[in-house]
Amino acid sequence: MPDRNIKITLQYDGSRYDGWQKQGNTDKTIQGKLEQILEKMAGQPVEVHGSGRTDAGVHAWGQVANFHLPASCAGMSAEELKAYLNRYLPDDIAVLSAQEAGTRFHSRLNAVSKTYCYRIETAAKKNVFERRYVYGLGEPLDIAAMRRAAAYLTGEHDFKAFCSLKRMKKSTVRNLTAIEIAMRESVCELHFRGNGFLYNMVRILTGTLIEVGLHKRTPESVAETLFSCDRALAGFTAPPEGLFLERVEYE
Amino acid sequence: MPDRNIKITLQYDGSRYDGWQKQGNTDKTIQGKLEQILEKMAGQPVEVHGSGRTDAGVHAWGQVANFHLPASCAGMSAEELKAYLNRYLPDDIAVLSAQEAGTRFHSRLNAVSKTYCYRIETAAKKNVFERRYVYGLGEPLDIAAMRRAAAYLTGEHDFKAFCSLKRMKKSTVRNLTAIEIAMRESVCELHFRGNGFLYNMVRILTGTLIEVGLHKRTPESVAETLFSCDRALAGFTAPPEGLFLERVEYE
Repeated sequence: MPDRNIKITLQYDGSRYDGWQKQGNTDKTIQGKLEQILEKMAGQPVEVHGSGRTDAGVHAWGQVANFHLPASCAGMSAEELKAYLNRYLPDDIAVLSAQEAGTRFHSRLNAVSKTYCYRIETAAKKNVFERRYVYGLGEPLDIAAMRRAAAYLTGEHDFKAFCSLKRMKKSTVRNLTAIEIAMRESVCELHFRGNGFLYNMVRILTGTLIEVGLHKRTPESVAETLFSCDRALAGFTAPPEGLFLERVEYE
Repeated sequence: MPDRNIKITLQYDGSRYDGWQKQGNTDKTIQGKLEQILEKMAGQPVEVHGSGRTDAGVHAWGQVANFHLPASCAGMSAEELKAYLNRYLPDDIAVLSAQEAGTRFHSRLNAVSKTYCYRIETAAKKNVFERRYVYGLGEPLDIAAMRRAAAYLTGEHDFKAFCSLKRMKKSTVRNLTAIEIAMRESVCELHFRGNGFLYNMVRILTGTLIEVGLHKRTPESVAETLFSCDRALAGFTAPPEGLFLERVEYE
């Protein structure tokens, strides 16, 4: 009987969680919630691998994770697994799909690109039905200036200036393949696609682009910040409630 | 100085409220919240007239209300009023627009039609971001059968069978000008447009149509129920979280 490796796609409202990765109190992380339910189901611990961590308060439309299923669950189909998880998960976490993956599939190691979306309300008051899923800036943004700044950021660069961790032993070079900026009614949506992201990178890029959109800094200053590798020159870290892990892509 | 009459359009998440109409505890009704803020602003009580009540837990995309502005607020423009209200209203109530109306305008008496929308999740698990704004049925619906049943209900009829109040002294005849039923991904949306609605009418109509969609009753049985004027023959009262006051129209 070959080992079964299950790939799941997840949606979650991160508002009341301490992020993806389990910590002491597993009750308050997404990974912890999943592992709790799987352990009860399988009668033994099951480790869930996510495509990457999301911070406290950050949401996901399409997080991907995988786990190896113990022999005790051999009789369950992927669809039954999805139904089981959804029955026991709280209403702010949902499994969108579950499927068999190759034994060697790993949701983090095999990911070739990720897309994050950051949502900014430019109107004075947030839409009440989206109030937990958007950052309430409450001021108009100069989208054309933001797009000029985004053009400097696109491509393979050292993004050290846009990372919160001070001591990074590993490389801080990443390939940001696209930044798309669009208005949907009064909400400005920024989509960042890349082969990997540093700690807080999307939120610092967003904070910096917001400062450009408010004319607090020029698009050119963003290029200077990038080349400086100096976090102090970048903008503020935009708050977590506007951030969504949108999609993870595999070969 | 002529009396100023202000018409406002409101959006609210009804989840944590006891409905539109103020009761003893004004803190938990939409009308009460508005009147509290206006009284503080004007230095005297201001009565807010809504186009109609919404029940506890029911939401609004476009509730309309009006109020007469005391002389103490003569210097405020409608835009300033909107900004003032939005600043002091909680984040689950928002004023979408405020404008001067004719002195005799009354949001309830002058309304010529209202549209309600009822949203039903047919998938096993609700979208986590909409979990407070949809009824979680979790079963597929036969939309064609529901449309056949809806055709019997459209038009001017005595809707006594679809009203929760047992003793109605006034007429229970209403003109239901349109019922539109459409799927948006896995969510079934029912739009009811009419010249007026009885107490719980939309929720009982929805519960009855759901029973048709689940093949628990025939479309023809809905016509029989209508003609019987007997509440006992109609379906269940669908829960409030799926219901939205969508739009109120005036001449």
